[in-house]
Amino acid sequence: MSKELATRNEDFSKWYNELVLKADLAEHSAVKGCMVIKPHGYAIWEKMQAALDKMFKDTGHVNAYFPLFIPKSFFSKEASHVDGFAKECAVVTHYRLKTAPDGSIVVDPDAKLEEELIVRPTSETIIWNTYKGWIQSYRDLPLLINQWANVVRWEMRTRLFLRTTEFLWQEGHTAHATAEEAVEETRKMLDVYADFVENYMAVPVVKGVKTANERFAGALDTYCIEAMLQDGKALQAGTSHFLGQNFAKAFDVKFATKEGKQEYVWATSWGVSTRLMGALIMSHSDDNGLVLPPKLAPIQVVIVPIYKGEEGLEKIREVVLPLKKKLESFGVSVKFDDRDTQRPGWKFAEYELKGVPVRIAVGERDLANGTVEVARRDTLSKETVPVEGIETKIVELLNTIQDNLFQMALKRKEELTTKVDTWDEFVKLLENKAGFASAHWDGTPETEQKIKEMTKATIRCIPLNNPQEEGTCILTGKPSKERVLFAIAY
Amino acid sequence: MSKELATRNEDFSKWYNELVLKADLAEHSAVKGCMVIKPHGYAIWEKMQAALDKMFKDTGHVNAYFPLFIPKSFFSKEASHVDGFAKECAVVTHYRLKTAPDGSIVVDPDAKLEEELIVRPTSETIIWNTYKGWIQSYRDLPLLINQWANVVRWEMRTRLFLRTTEFLWQEGHTAHATAEEAVEETRKMLDVYADFVENYMAVPVVKGVKTANERFAGALDTYCIEAMLQDGKALQAGTSHFLGQNFAKAFDVKFATKEGKQEYVWATSWGVSTRLMGALIMSHSDDNGLVLPPKLAPIQVVIVPIYKGEEGLEKIREVVLPLKKKLESFGVSVKFDDRDTQRPGWKFAEYELKGVPVRIAVGERDLANGTVEVARRDTLSKETVPVEGIETKIVELLNTIQDNLFQMALKRKEELTTKVDTWDEFVKLLENKAGFASAHWDGTPETEQKIKEMTKATIRCIPLNNPQEEGTCILTGKPSKERVLFAIAY
Repeated sequence: MSKELATRNEDFSKWYNELVLKADLAEHSAVKGCMVIKPHGYAIWEKMQAALDKMFKDTGHVNAYFPLFIPKSFFSKEASHVDGFAKECAVVTHYRLKTAPDGSIVVDPDAKLEEELIVRPTSETIIWNTYKGWIQSYRDLPLLINQWANVVRWEMRTRLFLRTTEFLWQEGHTAHATAEEAVEETRKMLDVYADFVENYMAVPVVKGVKTANERFAGALDTYCIEAMLQDGKALQAGTSHFLGQNFAKAFDVKFATKEGKQEYVWATSWGVSTRLMGALIMSHSDDNGLVLPPKLAPIQVVIVPIYKGEEGLEKIREVVLPLKKKLESFGVSVKFDDRDTQRPGWKFAEYELKGVPVRIAVGERDLANGTVEVARRDTLSKETVPVEGIETKIVELLNTIQDNLFQMALKRKEELTTKVDTWDEFVKLLENKAGFASAHWDGTPETEQKIKEMTKATIRCIPLNNPQEEGTCILTGKPSKERVLFAIAY
Repeated sequence: MSKELATRNEDFSKWYNELVLKADLAEHSAVKGCMVIKPHGYAIWEKMQAALDKMFKDTGHVNAYFPLFIPKSFFSKEASHVDGFAKECAVVTHYRLKTAPDGSIVVDPDAKLEEELIVRPTSETIIWNTYKGWIQSYRDLPLLINQWANVVRWEMRTRLFLRTTEFLWQEGHTAHATAEEAVEETRKMLDVYADFVENYMAVPVVKGVKTANERFAGALDTYCIEAMLQDGKALQAGTSHFLGQNFAKAFDVKFATKEGKQEYVWATSWGVSTRLMGALIMSHSDDNGLVLPPKLAPIQVVIVPIYKGEEGLEKIREVVLPLKKKLESFGVSVKFDDRDTQRPGWKFAEYELKGVPVRIAVGERDLANGTVEVARRDTLSKETVPVEGIETKIVELLNTIQDNLFQMALKRKEELTTKVDTWDEFVKLLENKAGFASAHWDGTPETEQKIKEMTKATIRCIPLNNPQEEGTCILTGKPSKERVLFAIAY
């Protein structure tokens, strides 16, 4: 059967690639490195967007939209930013095509831009250039703005959702009167991200701060949330940056304080992207297909009739349609799949593959008994349940599934976090793809770089509220005051 | 006062440009032809998106996302499409920048793309290239997909919202088994657009079909809705195209019929864009600023306290906060502006400028009398109203305002539609910018082109259900069977 996937144990990477395609989430496009997000994948992304957007608005942010293109010269204005971002990017050099004498379509050499435009890899520069016109006085602060947009970072090795040349994301860009306020905003948005990823995606995260090596280009501090996936690899699920006054200085954005002094503005930026789809898929799914937490499932309950002939279906409809209505009145999204072009077994496999959290099957015997069969996607268990009063049970079940997925992922994250104190233990752990290694490090970028070169492991973060503990660096033996989290990461 | 606008009579065009800037809707960016959509403008666009998105879903469509870039060769595949679209566009030729020996950032000549990429001006080609993999059998049809995206059409003369190099839009792309079904979809989406523009934007439209000259590049028929603005100019507010089998043939998309035959798929596409913001602004706004229909107003009711000292404000809060809550329970969005940094008069002008439909002012005398002052943005009229039971009156008032704006615009559209039967009448009408000229035309593209060159007027559409009537062409005197609508258009 074409729906069968590679198993996770056989080949996790192959399993993921096949799952993304077969569950109709996304596919590669004709444009190298760019993906097509298919309707089922996009519907999940829309649910993520809606939840995040509400959280941003509830914390006082508004949306706006800035240009797709950034003049090349803007990148040179913030020295460390240009190194991090302006290198691998799409460059627009011309603005017209023309028909050549042989009838082919060619770039018109007369339509060369004076200054090349970069397709935004991130928007700090164009936004801070705009903020210069918006901020004059302390009364204009804080400025709390978010943008939903597509961005492009030229990637040589791509993977659907995890690393694509074009991806969708949101980027918050805020401006503040003081460093304290900007740091508070940075941390607040990190908390919003952690809240969303844990409570909607059911993926537990470690909140932490990046080392200098892993910091965003142009930031003073990069905070992050790190998730641990089923294969023992880590994935950075979101970042929130304290940018200090770097961009304000680069674009000369000053404000008049209450006392009438001119000061540079303090900045933050923060973002999550369609990469979260990769984290979601790799966190919960199994060898049968996608597993979705109910809060992000476009269809939460599917009802499949098992019947013979139109008359049989009509009898089932009499029970199912009122049930569907009741469930919908509780805010549950329900699909009744009464297509006669596919058999029930095909439908069961299809909705398993697509990750629908709850399946209700209704057959003729059920009708006689006043029952239905309820199947859970997370545990693959089935149960025969009376129709009477089933709607409240289904609502509870959806909550139970949401919670169970989080608890299972939390257990895994804990199992996949190991304290290691020697280099041998460290290497062995990483060879077995066994998750986070909590280890001492001497605090230098050089040692971090050496460890990366030797093992491919990077410091995912220095956890927030990290216990202080005397120890010695696993590589150099130099003294250390705290453990950090190493892992192989996506 | 910096908030004062040019008046519409003085200079409509200047009035519009100033209004867009001063009401914080949008501004020009550092990138020629590209706009920044500011938070207030974007909040209105979000309300438009939400309403349209629901209408699309209610009619069976799902969202997806396709790449920003289109390989150059794709445009050559549909002959008429390339002429219409692939000419004035942003061309990506390189994928890397580097630091030159002098420290400047330059395009890396080694990172030249083998085939140039075009930033999508519209997505028919990349989408139909994708549909080839999605459609095999009649079971895969219809395919009803919409995309929310940014697109780029290089424009030399731009105007905020009305014509910008980059703009935001939605583009529906559907695939069908029969021509009849595709035409039905084309007409259905035209009706959806008309419904949205009339019932949310409060802008009456004429539904019609374009002449061959004005047809979308690659379409067999282009349907449109045309609005008439305050200055007597027409604006195309949305288009829906019946594409026949042109794109299916260009990208070789066939399906197996029930009978097992291979046939080309039938297509439609349809779109509206941030251009609608221009129509909205130019349709209702006045010399005091923006006027928004309540259904699209991010804030529907603003409450401004008039008080002395914190104690006075506290007494007003006791009345206002319960009122705010009650209004919100009716689904009304309310802002209570109790900032002490601005005076009431400043706030009144500010919310007038921003188009808030209803303003409630509460002063000390009102408290004593158990009344508030309610001001309507559309008529600028004020009334003193008892607080008791005011919430239902406000809800009614919002409906009244929504309806009044539509009726006023409808009256204008009717006044600005004139039957003309001679060339002199026609020229005089257009010189006075007097709206739609309903006139006979001989049905040839040549005559249409000549009229355009002589008067700048174009045929906006041949209205649907157009009465058949014998007549003679205003220019050539040749026989004609129906009148068409001419106008100067944005």
